[in-house]
Amino acid sequence: MSDDDIADLDWQRADRRGYPEAVYCEGKSVEQVREIAQRVAEKPDVVTIFTRADDERAEAIKEVLPDAFHDEVARFLAWPPRRPEPTGKLVVVACAGTSDLPVAREALLTARHLGRPAELVVDVGIAGLHRTLSKLDVFRKAGAIVVAAGMDGALPGLIAGLVSCPVVAVPTSVGYGASFGGVSALLTMLNACAPGVGVVNIDNGYGAGHLAAQIAAP
Amino acid sequence: MSDDDIADLDWQRADRRGYPEAVYCEGKSVEQVREIAQRVAEKPDVVTIFTRADDERAEAIKEVLPDAFHDEVARFLAWPPRRPEPTGKLVVVACAGTSDLPVAREALLTARHLGRPAELVVDVGIAGLHRTLSKLDVFRKAGAIVVAAGMDGALPGLIAGLVSCPVVAVPTSVGYGASFGGVSALLTMLNACAPGVGVVNIDNGYGAGHLAAQIAAP
Amino acid sequence: MSDDDIADLDWQRADRRGYPEAVYCEGKSVEQVREIAQRVAEKPDVVTIFTRADDERAEAIKEVLPDAFHDEVARFLAWPPRRPEPTGKLVVVACAGTSDLPVAREALLTARHLGRPAELVVDVGIAGLHRTLSKLDVFRKAGAIVVAAGMDGALPGLIAGLVSCPVVAVPTSVGYGASFGGVSALLTMLNACAPGVGVVNIDNGYGAGHLAAQIAAP
Amino acid sequence: MSDDDIADLDWQRADRRGYPEAVYCEGKSVEQVREIAQRVAEKPDVVTIFTRADDERAEAIKEVLPDAFHDEVARFLAWPPRRPEPTGKLVVVACAGTSDLPVAREALLTARHLGRPAELVVDVGIAGLHRTLSKLDVFRKAGAIVVAAGMDGALPGLIAGLVSCPVVAVPTSVGYGASFGGVSALLTMLNACAPGVGVVNIDNGYGAGHLAAQIAAP
Amino acid sequence: MSDDDIADLDWQRADRRGYPEAVYCEGKSVEQVREIAQRVAEKPDVVTIFTRADDERAEAIKEVLPDAFHDEVARFLAWPPRRPEPTGKLVVVACAGTSDLPVAREALLTARHLGRPAELVVDVGIAGLHRTLSKLDVFRKAGAIVVAAGMDGALPGLIAGLVSCPVVAVPTSVGYGASFGGVSALLTMLNACAPGVGVVNIDNGYGAGHLAAQIAAP
Amino acid sequence: MSDDDIADLDWQRADRRGYPEAVYCEGKSVEQVREIAQRVAEKPDVVTIFTRADDERAEAIKEVLPDAFHDEVARFLAWPPRRPEPTGKLVVVACAGTSDLPVAREALLTARHLGRPAELVVDVGIAGLHRTLSKLDVFRKAGAIVVAAGMDGALPGLIAGLVSCPVVAVPTSVGYGASFGGVSALLTMLNACAPGVGVVNIDNGYGAGHLAAQIAAP
Amino acid sequence: MSDDDIADLDWQRADRRGYPEAVYCEGKSVEQVREIAQRVAEKPDVVTIFTRADDERAEAIKEVLPDAFHDEVARFLAWPPRRPEPTGKLVVVACAGTSDLPVAREALLTARHLGRPAELVVDVGIAGLHRTLSKLDVFRKAGAIVVAAGMDGALPGLIAGLVSCPVVAVPTSVGYGASFGGVSALLTMLNACAPGVGVVNIDNGYGAGHLAAQIAAP
Amino acid sequence: MSDDDIADLDWQRADRRGYPEAVYCEGKSVEQVREIAQRVAEKPDVVTIFTRADDERAEAIKEVLPDAFHDEVARFLAWPPRRPEPTGKLVVVACAGTSDLPVAREALLTARHLGRPAELVVDVGIAGLHRTLSKLDVFRKAGAIVVAAGMDGALPGLIAGLVSCPVVAVPTSVGYGASFGGVSALLTMLNACAPGVGVVNIDNGYGAGHLAAQIAAP
Repeated sequence: MSDDDIADLDWQRADRRGYPEAVYCEGKSVEQVREIAQRVAEKPDVVTIFTRADDERAEAIKEVLPDAFHDEVARFLAWPPRRPEPTGKLVVVACAGTSDLPVAREALLTARHLGRPAELVVDVGIAGLHRTLSKLDVFRKAGAIVVAAGMDGALPGLIAGLVSCPVVAVPTSVGYGASFGGVSALLTMLNACAPGVGVVNIDNGYGAGHLAAQIAAP
Repeated sequence: MSDDDIADLDWQRADRRGYPEAVYCEGKSVEQVREIAQRVAEKPDVVTIFTRADDERAEAIKEVLPDAFHDEVARFLAWPPRRPEPTGKLVVVACAGTSDLPVAREALLTARHLGRPAELVVDVGIAGLHRTLSKLDVFRKAGAIVVAAGMDGALPGLIAGLVSCPVVAVPTSVGYGASFGGVSALLTMLNACAPGVGVVNIDNGYGAGHLAAQIAAP
Repeated sequence: MSDDDIADLDWQRADRRGYPEAVYCEGKSVEQVREIAQRVAEKPDVVTIFTRADDERAEAIKEVLPDAFHDEVARFLAWPPRRPEPTGKLVVVACAGTSDLPVAREALLTARHLGRPAELVVDVGIAGLHRTLSKLDVFRKAGAIVVAAGMDGALPGLIAGLVSCPVVAVPTSVGYGASFGGVSALLTMLNACAPGVGVVNIDNGYGAGHLAAQIAAP
Repeated sequence: MSDDDIADLDWQRADRRGYPEAVYCEGKSVEQVREIAQRVAEKPDVVTIFTRADDERAEAIKEVLPDAFHDEVARFLAWPPRRPEPTGKLVVVACAGTSDLPVAREALLTARHLGRPAELVVDVGIAGLHRTLSKLDVFRKAGAIVVAAGMDGALPGLIAGLVSCPVVAVPTSVGYGASFGGVSALLTMLNACAPGVGVVNIDNGYGAGHLAAQIAAP
Repeated sequence: MSDDDIADLDWQRADRRGYPEAVYCEGKSVEQVREIAQRVAEKPDVVTIFTRADDERAEAIKEVLPDAFHDEVARFLAWPPRRPEPTGKLVVVACAGTSDLPVAREALLTARHLGRPAELVVDVGIAGLHRTLSKLDVFRKAGAIVVAAGMDGALPGLIAGLVSCPVVAVPTSVGYGASFGGVSALLTMLNACAPGVGVVNIDNGYGAGHLAAQIAAP
Repeated sequence: MSDDDIADLDWQRADRRGYPEAVYCEGKSVEQVREIAQRVAEKPDVVTIFTRADDERAEAIKEVLPDAFHDEVARFLAWPPRRPEPTGKLVVVACAGTSDLPVAREALLTARHLGRPAELVVDVGIAGLHRTLSKLDVFRKAGAIVVAAGMDGALPGLIAGLVSCPVVAVPTSVGYGASFGGVSALLTMLNACAPGVGVVNIDNGYGAGHLAAQIAAP
Repeated sequence: MSDDDIADLDWQRADRRGYPEAVYCEGKSVEQVREIAQRVAEKPDVVTIFTRADDERAEAIKEVLPDAFHDEVARFLAWPPRRPEPTGKLVVVACAGTSDLPVAREALLTARHLGRPAELVVDVGIAGLHRTLSKLDVFRKAGAIVVAAGMDGALPGLIAGLVSCPVVAVPTSVGYGASFGGVSALLTMLNACAPGVGVVNIDNGYGAGHLAAQIAAP
Repeated sequence: MSDDDIADLDWQRADRRGYPEAVYCEGKSVEQVREIAQRVAEKPDVVTIFTRADDERAEAIKEVLPDAFHDEVARFLAWPPRRPEPTGKLVVVACAGTSDLPVAREALLTARHLGRPAELVVDVGIAGLHRTLSKLDVFRKAGAIVVAAGMDGALPGLIAGLVSCPVVAVPTSVGYGASFGGVSALLTMLNACAPGVGVVNIDNGYGAGHLAAQIAAP
């Protein structure tokens, strides 16, 4: 390997673990992202997901892979663009507010591109309990529920106390000063009184959707 | 609910808790804020407050609700624009310096739009004790006092030791390095030697004004 | 004042602020606590509260003030022992679990000795939502609600979303590792999505009861 | 409810969520634990788990429930003592060292008492890679893997990269100074490069076993 | 130097810096403290201070140096026992409560054994402002003021705003949960609004007294 | 006071404490700074210092006070521009590197405008010990030494061990990742092995210079 | 030394320690960097390294030293440009992903300009174990291995368990929210289960390369 | 492997990495340590080190391995007891004070039992610079220097600036409050201005001695 190599993609991953490769675009230069897209273009039989792609990086990918699936809110791309046929149990993704949508949609799309049926429930929250309770029937159909929440991060624990399937909790960096960029929500989720909550990294919608897709796998 | 829904506003809130709905604009796109304003426009009989609206978001709101009340320093809007008739006890809002004004005014305006008489006292502080003591008569007329302070955050504890009404302490993110974006002031307030201090989140003038309005309710 | 003086009690406090003096026993030697009790004994017309008195310190106090009121769970003493006639609105103290009882009872007793009618509600919690909802009628009678909670600390925000009176939130140091001695609950409370929550220090039942008594004052 | 009530157990939990009630003994007095055991004794048709029961609390429980199942290393009791017939997929519990055994066994026993077949793998670790690789066949039979690790907490991420089922990561408070009571391991797990890791609280073997049992449910 | 050497005392320190040697006893075994005392006994012409000496270590020192000066509250010893004739300006040591006395007395005794006239003022505090103001004449006579305070740590900033001499602020580890062992007080002092405050380590009465003695040196 | 008041300057400060008023410009709008400058212009007999004035704020001040003294590196202005005649002992300001110059110069200029003779020593440091030792004669002439240092922050402790006058340590926010914006240097200084170090806030050159000027006062 | 001096370079360093001088450009103004480059130009017989030079600062250096070696990814310059003849053992620099390249290359170039043979290995990682194992022969040829890793930072511990030479671990600030700008990786490395890991500061490729060059010195 | 297995020792480690196995006794029960010692007894041809063995655990080991080497201060045992013939370069271990001796001796003994010549230098420190400088000749003979320091942790950076060999820095948990159990020293070492410092975990004398032995290997 020469000094100029920038990445040695893991093409065997789908074989080894049964899930597609993902390219985390944040912290990579536009040029590096473009080069990776070019190597992706040579493997049309493997699904590749690009996460955290801002406008500039998304453009570079779409120059190389013009038909790639792209969701701007989630900063998410996938190629080849068509989703696999859904198998396994339903993944429900819930979020507490509009500001959490980018993370929630990233989880939703990841679960779908990993082959699960997936549904989004918006603006349930602990401060408006009636809205959450009115969605109980949707939650109780799920094989795995992803809950994205910032601020107090209390929603995953609330939902986990009402259902029997596992809850994947993803803290978001939304909130006033003492939310500390998601740390408050993260701690709340780790300390959830109801068992059945598995926590992933702050704003990591991709990781949440991936874990939920594994839990709900056929 | 389709994937494209962004928010399911809580119109029953005024009924349920007796206080208006608030829209936290930070972390929402300009487009999302505009859409919310459009739904607000259909409910002229409910008071809606917009907080943390920077210039761009405030413009979007005022395009939809041109007569909205707007305070630029506080980044605060309300619609319908007229304040309710003041009832209940006086809310006094005090702050330690010019830099704390945005937070202090957000508290002041929230208290007023929730229906309390409210008054602002500027530039009292622990380092200039005589200025604080000279305002004692105003503080002692209050049913609730909001104190916004950054840096050492010592002012709420000082005032709480001099009055008998509750003090709502709101730390601000103003200060040198080791103020850690308001953490130092937050800790000081939580550790106030004088009892009678309830603390809200850093820079959360809205929350402080809301709590004070509840305490001073008729 | 000689080098040997250990404390100059604030006898005017009841006059100045309308509330009794409190002696925080933790961090004082048994001998120091006894000396303070002796000075208290000379002022039978002022109510004095002793907080955080472990068995040894409580014994020392009761040697001097044998008829003092003493609650072992709350580590709380008061002298003279009889509570003032209750005036003002009802203070409700709620807690999420047995482990939070010492803090909850300290708040309850403080509110009562400051002259409020006060009631305790045990074992409501976010993980058993039906239990919390079944107490709504009690919560809605209150003029101020103290909520003590450890672990995820989500209960105060949940209750604040259901009532119109102020909620005083007191985090407790109960929980697994990442509760960090109450820090997780503290942050959750500061970030509560529902407005109307004022936070006091970790395990500070005295401060919570005091603030609630001020809010519910006649 | 009188002031003397200490707990209102959630007997409907098994109905509502399909899993037994758990009593967290840490932070409860011996007397309180005994009273709870007495109420448990009246419900022989519901499985109750006691976690974090030190010798003294375990004795109190066994005085009331002499035939309770008791594991001293895990500080775990269950009553009625017999485990349900195993159903669902295999839960594998792995740990990096002898010091992590209490947490690992708590997870193992929780999974078993919730009705899963479960197996323990000891002393795999990142520093002795060959030992971990030699257990790959066991890991690949699992429907859910719990990995308990202190110090660098790198083992869950390593295993997640080698299997396709979800990994439940439980940090333990084992390690030198800068492990900060499990915080280092916790952060490592949240930042695991391989997706498919859900994290629970530090030393929370019960929560890990519970989540794994839900994931591996039939 | 052989492996068995435990300490190479700095006898030239008095010459080099003009101040005595100090032995920090915490973290040293009783045996090590005794050995050091034996070497001290050979240098009767140099003043040596022992700090943080608990009962057992103090006993070991007094077996070797029976006439050593010893203050139990401050856990402080000095030998030879007699203080130098006071020179320079007055050092005033103030503290906010009984619990801060050990630290305050350590500062007081250090200043005296370094040769300054020094005076103690007890139980001034921000929550009882009138008590602090009543001591203003003492504070204004000082060449340096040491202020020891736990909890909110606001007292040094308050005093600094009222005098023209430097204030040495020493945070103490006294307080409820979110005082974090003195961190809250430390941050308050570093962020004091009034200039003129120099901060030393938590509970470091020795360091505070030493710095004050240097400031007030003739 | 109307709602529009932004600041109530403390003109009596020079009388009360003997030192000039300072205006901290960070966090104030350009408009607010200009208004304050206009009020300063009406009091030519009082020295006013402006700190943390970036280019835009400095321009606003100089439009109102064209002859103000201005140092761009230190972001420092003073008006009236002429420094008082130096009295008292020498203040030496030392810093470890070019990057610390803004803070060091702010301290230097503050000390001079408060009336002390003051001198700057650049690029001494613990990694180049010979350079520090070569300046020992300057350090030993001082009545107070300010040491600004980022990264490991070890320089103040090193210098304090070599001189007998007090050292004012000011941590700077210069350094690699784990310097945490000055926290590492701050902690080092608080833990300095040599007594005689008083610490001020991160990057607070003004506070350091002020404290040094008080220590070296005639 | 006048007030205008900005730096007193340590020309004797190569003599004293055997290694070149380094200029850390971050936090220095462009003008200050240019002045330093001019003084460097007068010493062609000493190797000088510039680190953390963004485009603007690099331009300023190259105006003065047009033939300087410059690597843009690493933000690294050296003058005179030619590397010393390699002596000593091989330094291998490994990194876990493209995003870590700037730090890894800074380490690589530092080792080479300090006179070691050095080689780069890209995109090995704990989540793709087979890629790491496939490079074992390269790692086992090394006299020192630098491993740069963000996120979970587990790679250095993994490699240290497979080789007998020392590993220099450099955490990078790459990752999702709870990587906390490299803190998570830093803690993982400090807690590495395998002995033989020495840790340097976050993103400090220069320090890592320097330490490795010293370890591998002839 | 049955549920009762507690550890699967890594007997191949000496072969694979060239260094002995180590058993970390903290967090293991006395019974577990004894069992491990019994398995060690069956392998007299492999060197095994026991670290962090308190009196009780050391007794258990010596019951099984009566001739084991044991150092009580370092809480260190080795079996077989005889050290290998020293090869490679000299390892010097330095510490700043008596309180750091347990950690320093653990490093010293580890280096010796791994086969290096090793020497201890006690009570050098930044506050007594002349003592450090007087040992320069010893430091300059070393192939690797371990420096153990608590409090400000400045000593490793000071020494690194004076020598050309690598320095292994080990922070100790010795110090006043804001040393935070070694965190302050840890940060200082990571931020050392002089390059050439590799840091290990707090109080990890074993890790420091191991790394130094690898650096100084023949």
